[in-house]
Amino acid sequence: MTIEIIPLRGIPRVKRGDDIPRLIVECANASNIELKDGDILVISQKIVSKAEGRTVSLLDVEPSPFALKIAEYTGKKAEVVELILRESRSIVRMSNKHIICETNHGFVCANAGVDLSNVNGGKSATLLPVDPDRSARLIREGIFKLTGKDVAVIISDTHGRPLRRGVVNVAIGCSGIKPLKNYRGKHDLYGYTMRVTIVAVADELASAAELLMGEGDEGVPVVIIRGYHYERGDDKATVLARPAIEDLFR
Amino acid sequence: MTIEIIPLRGIPRVKRGDDIPRLIVECANASNIELKDGDILVISQKIVSKAEGRTVSLLDVEPSPFALKIAEYTGKKAEVVELILRESRSIVRMSNKHIICETNHGFVCANAGVDLSNVNGGKSATLLPVDPDRSARLIREGIFKLTGKDVAVIISDTHGRPLRRGVVNVAIGCSGIKPLKNYRGKHDLYGYTMRVTIVAVADELASAAELLMGEGDEGVPVVIIRGYHYERGDDKATVLARPAIEDLFR
Repeated sequence: MTIEIIPLRGIPRVKRGDDIPRLIVECANASNIELKDGDILVISQKIVSKAEGRTVSLLDVEPSPFALKIAEYTGKKAEVVELILRESRSIVRMSNKHIICETNHGFVCANAGVDLSNVNGGKSATLLPVDPDRSARLIREGIFKLTGKDVAVIISDTHGRPLRRGVVNVAIGCSGIKPLKNYRGKHDLYGYTMRVTIVAVADELASAAELLMGEGDEGVPVVIIRGYHYERGDDKATVLARPAIEDLFR
Repeated sequence: MTIEIIPLRGIPRVKRGDDIPRLIVECANASNIELKDGDILVISQKIVSKAEGRTVSLLDVEPSPFALKIAEYTGKKAEVVELILRESRSIVRMSNKHIICETNHGFVCANAGVDLSNVNGGKSATLLPVDPDRSARLIREGIFKLTGKDVAVIISDTHGRPLRRGVVNVAIGCSGIKPLKNYRGKHDLYGYTMRVTIVAVADELASAAELLMGEGDEGVPVVIIRGYHYERGDDKATVLARPAIEDLFR
């Protein structure tokens, strides 16, 4: 079985209140792509955030005294630092260049996902969706309502990583797919029990989708992955966030 | 443009001295898959290590006094710990369960890639290839010689990660493809210069391939990725290893 990674081209610029499932279905129809049961839609958090109105004008942000201090230390705008702090549960690492945060959802990433690029020339910022698993579920339900097709949805974002250079796309929300696949207890050819192996398939799917997402002005914010036999389930993408107590690198 | 991820089924059990390019070409022919210019072959390090004779009988390993001590602390076999130490440039984290090493190549992973599973019921171990970039180059050259096709080759391994649960497949060797893709300096729609964005596409390709590699007894050790427009280049996969001095988590 071959897996196909299919870009969904032609999604218009998304704004607050837009109906993402409808945009996806209309765009698929216009591209002669018929959604199928078992398709996985990988959707960039950027369009989800915009549709959910998670764009903030920096003029409306009042930096706290701590944000002002951190802004001076890191050279970032104080309003942006204030937003980063509001989006964070804790700060995991800080240098004069980087603020690595644990987001309110529990993911660890730079700037808690607050993004200046692509919005109003740096005068506004986008924040991550409040609950990306819920966003994924609503999109999945919306697509089922419009098409009758049972797809899985992954909301993705690009994150830097310790130990390895370069960012990769990972899953920050999902619906209809188990993000971790368990190979625990499988035996090999010699009857020797393999070590526990749990594969982060939702992250691998997000990474596969990124190969088509990255290019262009706003890129390709929706990618369909077809032919991958995933395990259905209700687990949230937050199971991918490794708690500090399990982490040798926190 | 759609990307296809195509499993190459039917690769026989690999042993020392086997000619991997020939096995791949024969297997592709038998499966009616014609290799094309621009295909990316993602190859599990396991079969490369075996072909290169990187299998060691534990009976031939004399543990050092330090290895004996660590074996007692971690509950691992002393001979295995000895191999882990020999494969390591440094130890990055150690607990009573885990030894996270910087391999002689510079990658950080558990047990320096020394693997007991799948070889002789735990009486032998496989080590990573001595130089996975060289292995990738030789396989690429071999395939060119047999078919006249210019493919890229990625040697992959599954690694655990800080911050996120689950292992993912990453690139530890490559040939013919730039492992990092540079979006530095691209402008967005508003003329606002985006932050530096460097995407680890070789890791994303390895992760995409894993979606088909994982299953089965020995799994599917070779996967073809077709339709991805990669940048050609001579960079080694070791550029993906983030040096400690650049790493907020070391």
